[in-house]
Amino acid sequence: MATSGTRRPGGRTERTRLAVLHATLDLLAERGFSELTVDAVAERSGVHKTTVYRRWSSADGLVAAALQMGAEDDWKAPDTGSLENDLYEVAAEVVRYFTEPALKELPTASVLAAFQSPPAAEALHEFYQDRHVRMAPITERAVARGEVPAGTDGDELVRAVCGPMFYRLFLSREGVTVADARVTARAVALAAREAAFVRDARD
Amino acid sequence: MATSGTRRPGGRTERTRLAVLHATLDLLAERGFSELTVDAVAERSGVHKTTVYRRWSSADGLVAAALQMGAEDDWKAPDTGSLENDLYEVAAEVVRYFTEPALKELPTASVLAAFQSPPAAEALHEFYQDRHVRMAPITERAVARGEVPAGTDGDELVRAVCGPMFYRLFLSREGVTVADARVTARAVALAAREAAFVRDARD
Repeated sequence: MATSGTRRPGGRTERTRLAVLHATLDLLAERGFSELTVDAVAERSGVHKTTVYRRWSSADGLVAAALQMGAEDDWKAPDTGSLENDLYEVAAEVVRYFTEPALKELPTASVLAAFQSPPAAEALHEFYQDRHVRMAPITERAVARGEVPAGTDGDELVRAVCGPMFYRLFLSREGVTVADARVTARAVALAAREAAFVRDARD
Repeated sequence: MATSGTRRPGGRTERTRLAVLHATLDLLAERGFSELTVDAVAERSGVHKTTVYRRWSSADGLVAAALQMGAEDDWKAPDTGSLENDLYEVAAEVVRYFTEPALKELPTASVLAAFQSPPAAEALHEFYQDRHVRMAPITERAVARGEVPAGTDGDELVRAVCGPMFYRLFLSREGVTVADARVTARAVALAAREAAFVRDARD
């Protein structure tokens, strides 16, 4: 029997939760974490502010819950048949997601929020942990195909191919395109073939 | 003859400039860009606020000028005699600079300010451009020693070795140590030896 607080799909409590968390994501993308308040989320979602306060208590609580919800998708790692192309798809998705005007506001605001809110940082950490788990098959399949040696560290491959994209976006701020994703994916795949990312070889 | 506004070393105008910009860096590290105001900088520096407004006009102008001043140092790229060790020193410096409690506040606040202020983003971009120029000898010397092929792209080497450090710091937020810098430097140096970063090979 569904009681108050149960996440019954389609139930009133669940509809309230979705309304509040989607309003949080919208406001985060539009205004950033600095201007995110419980009152603004209540107003945008049409949910009474005492309900929002009772359940999420603060902007920190809202943004963490909203980022967790945002991670509950059915994203699957690419499976193109080659390590280089799988890595290219991963890096190119980073580029598109953080540069296309229609997409970039929310992911950029999420990275920024993690500087400003420890619960947001923890939610971002959990998001990337989950993504790493979902990307493990990229390396497992490359090992099975004989493209890279057994013991290749899939997490390091992800960091190696995504790191330079984020470096261009948020540190050197020099711009990034899918052509950069191609260059990096090629270099990382070549390095992986040459056993650069084998765990035991490096200790 | 020094006139008003000239940057004569030791002169009153130069002392005022240094006082204001050092106060800006201190406040940026302590409070972040969101709370940086011309009034707070005037108070901290002991310089009259009309002087600060006249010369820098806004928090954006102050933070950009302060970050530019911060980049005017005598930093030189490491020269250890091997590509892997040079790259390790670069990556380990990123790790230390962004993780040691006594150091990390200002660089972290600078990265954050670049999200919030276009002039700060431009100053950060110029800082990294300048650092890339200063790091070019790392690759030039490795080519001269025969460690890596001619045509190896030094900028890509820097992105490849620093990117995963920043990915851990600001995206996956999983923590980073100099041991990670070692793993990454080894992988990038190996990949570079195998011609993974040669410009012509990739087009």
